[in-house]
Amino acid sequence: MSEEMFKELQELLGENFTTSTAARYAYSSDASIYRAMPDAVARPMNTEEVSKIVKLANKYKVPITPRGAGTGLCGAAVPIKGGITLDMQAMNKIKSITPENLFCIVEPGVIYDHLNNELKSAGYQFPGSPGSAEAANIGGMVSLNASGMRAIKYGATRDYVLGLEVVLPTGEIMKVGTHTLKNSSGYQLEKLFVGSEGTLGIITEVTLKIVALPKAVAAALVSFDKVEKAGQAISNIIAHPIIPSSMEIMDNTCITAANRGIDAGLPDVPAILIIEVDGPIEEVGREIRQVEEVCKASGATEIIVSDDKAVYGLWHEARKSVLPALGGYSPELKIVSLADDMGVPISRVAQAVIGFKEISDRNKVIIATYGHASDGNLHTKFLIDPSKEDDWKRAEKAVEEIYDLVLSLDGTVTGEHGVGMAKAPYMKKERATAIKTMKAIKDALDPNNIMNPGKMFEWESEHIMFSLRYPAEVNFDE
Amino acid sequence: MSEEMFKELQELLGENFTTSTAARYAYSSDASIYRAMPDAVARPMNTEEVSKIVKLANKYKVPITPRGAGTGLCGAAVPIKGGITLDMQAMNKIKSITPENLFCIVEPGVIYDHLNNELKSAGYQFPGSPGSAEAANIGGMVSLNASGMRAIKYGATRDYVLGLEVVLPTGEIMKVGTHTLKNSSGYQLEKLFVGSEGTLGIITEVTLKIVALPKAVAAALVSFDKVEKAGQAISNIIAHPIIPSSMEIMDNTCITAANRGIDAGLPDVPAILIIEVDGPIEEVGREIRQVEEVCKASGATEIIVSDDKAVYGLWHEARKSVLPALGGYSPELKIVSLADDMGVPISRVAQAVIGFKEISDRNKVIIATYGHASDGNLHTKFLIDPSKEDDWKRAEKAVEEIYDLVLSLDGTVTGEHGVGMAKAPYMKKERATAIKTMKAIKDALDPNNIMNPGKMFEWESEHIMFSLRYPAEVNFDE
Repeated sequence: MSEEMFKELQELLGENFTTSTAARYAYSSDASIYRAMPDAVARPMNTEEVSKIVKLANKYKVPITPRGAGTGLCGAAVPIKGGITLDMQAMNKIKSITPENLFCIVEPGVIYDHLNNELKSAGYQFPGSPGSAEAANIGGMVSLNASGMRAIKYGATRDYVLGLEVVLPTGEIMKVGTHTLKNSSGYQLEKLFVGSEGTLGIITEVTLKIVALPKAVAAALVSFDKVEKAGQAISNIIAHPIIPSSMEIMDNTCITAANRGIDAGLPDVPAILIIEVDGPIEEVGREIRQVEEVCKASGATEIIVSDDKAVYGLWHEARKSVLPALGGYSPELKIVSLADDMGVPISRVAQAVIGFKEISDRNKVIIATYGHASDGNLHTKFLIDPSKEDDWKRAEKAVEEIYDLVLSLDGTVTGEHGVGMAKAPYMKKERATAIKTMKAIKDALDPNNIMNPGKMFEWESEHIMFSLRYPAEVNFDE
Repeated sequence: MSEEMFKELQELLGENFTTSTAARYAYSSDASIYRAMPDAVARPMNTEEVSKIVKLANKYKVPITPRGAGTGLCGAAVPIKGGITLDMQAMNKIKSITPENLFCIVEPGVIYDHLNNELKSAGYQFPGSPGSAEAANIGGMVSLNASGMRAIKYGATRDYVLGLEVVLPTGEIMKVGTHTLKNSSGYQLEKLFVGSEGTLGIITEVTLKIVALPKAVAAALVSFDKVEKAGQAISNIIAHPIIPSSMEIMDNTCITAANRGIDAGLPDVPAILIIEVDGPIEEVGREIRQVEEVCKASGATEIIVSDDKAVYGLWHEARKSVLPALGGYSPELKIVSLADDMGVPISRVAQAVIGFKEISDRNKVIIATYGHASDGNLHTKFLIDPSKEDDWKRAEKAVEEIYDLVLSLDGTVTGEHGVGMAKAPYMKKERATAIKTMKAIKDALDPNNIMNPGKMFEWESEHIMFSLRYPAEVNFDE
């Protein structure tokens, strides 16, 4: 960064601009395996400041990487080409909630749980339900098209974005979408920006559709002696048709981890499903009984049903505990996010889970599988000893095999986490016929390539690059 | 078109390619006020033929305008720059319906009602419900992001498009989206193509999400002595919260037309609402009673409730009859689609309807207002004597005032019909800060500007161009 640009930014932002090593280090990673230092960190307070920062970055051709809470698992917020990291967390106002219009307007730094607490008092919700709900920012969710376990019934973030304010790579401010529930008014750029991971501009305001909270909830904890049977139950429930509000699958590795980690008391079986239905009270009662029948007919060995939040809340907690609990699975193994978010057609969930297990065995690396079975979105976590180069090598081979399997099952390499760096080589395979068009759009909107460069389709390798993996060396005296 | 190109197309398509005046005339208009003759009509049978046609068009820089059933109201399928009209109706196969995966795969020429008949036997639906359901093609619905009266509860076409096969302006075949229920895998081009009106490529295959049919339905026919009170009832129902499956508003002009046209027997009052709820039987019973209470509290003068399809089916028929019935409103007046599809925030529906009435009175032109009140999407139809130039002038002034009003109410100039030519000057106003980005994307993907040129943001006037209006003169001997 030139001295001139440095001065201009300091003048503009005062103490909300820094190049200190400590700050740069703090902003060098997210929840992925990657780390890279930005040259500076800027913390804008409003859209005008964002616009001015981007204009400067564009003038001096300096990369700019927007960032929310840093809970992303794929490295989308890691500034691999250096430049400025734009911390959007100070723009955290809920501007309006209008239930009579079924939308709310928020700044990008608003935290998912904060927004839902506000909406709850009006009887509404934004039902994205990401795993990192207590921290995840709405702007980050929009950038990655995040969702969670309730997407089968309620959809992903994209389905809720009615309008956006965006600062384009030129610094110009663009309003896209509407404050109405539907529109056909020109290219729907608001949908293109969802999931564009900061490569096309900076999101500075979001208009989100909201929906009413359900009136009743019930859930079932279902055991299976074979993964295949759990998979068959999933297909049978969906084809019934019953659309659960969530249907989570956990394999035995995850069950063991949750039982060790939080004493979850889950049945020690090859696979469980945690199935939740919500809606009007009579329908919930009827549907949970149907779920029971379908699971029984699909070969479930045990079914526990409850409409008591104290009970099914524990099951959800057990499911949520998987990620931290895996960390305590074995003293020398660490969890790494490698192939962590695959999607397959619902009817192929069992094939995928079984395939992941075979890949795990073949490559001698522990792979835990869990996820949102109802919409075919599966997560795996790898347990490796990060000090051993061989562990990384076997893991990488397993990663490639997992993505090849998923694509052979007509699936996608990311259902809700985004691409960033971790999925980039495999997304390029999945989207082989579309990469040219993505690049053409990127070049047209960001000719100086300043917006979060080097990610997604710009990824230069056919593999994950472990050279960038955390922990990288940092010299605090530099 | 050069002789060389003509020969190549004839060789490729045989009798599915024609330059006869009769065919060109037949393809010169859609359901809008516009007419322009293509130079030729091509009727491809598969994606490969589409690709070859587009490659030729791109090589010879000849415009190409895709077309479905021609039910569009804004002129999107009228080839104002000449060239080839691509009739996609022969590509009408339903490729697969897989309820266990919650999607179906269809060619663009599949008719909405045909698809839903097939889906119905499996207990599913694609609930777009356009007014032209018996004729509208899925490809056209995708191109315009069409929807209908059930969008409040079920969303618009965009919410159902999981994947697309597209022939790009270069002739290359691109697959975007997935066969999974969600994905975050790169730019979501499938969403950008929805609503792009054939300006970015030709849609040759659509993967559509499907949803289960509702178990029960009930409806209410509600009379109001003031439009304001109907508007208040709409807001009160939504804020309750009750999300009806549809909530249609009709003003007195529409009521009169329906009563004259099909002897609908609707109450002769300033405004009615036809409110439908669907879902589990107990909830439907409860919600329709709540609808009744809320409407009473909002000042309704009469409320009729029914769960008998023979009864509420007639109300829907009355509502559907508005458009043809308006045609018989007066012997010398004709219906014209001018400002026919505005959206406002739900709480502003009453302000909009009242405003349209004032504009109608002020400009001495009969304007009928009806539409999907629950999601703020309003339709107007103008009744004018098309032989009188002065009628057109007064109509145009009223159009401009309607769009100005809608934009001042934080609305959109099109909720579900698309832009084409009829909305182009007003879309450009609404999307002032986004036009440059739309153009940049268009230029990047279609550098020779062969795909449906002259529409949307390329519209060259600040007004509707009546010079293009139907009927234009045609010389059948040319």
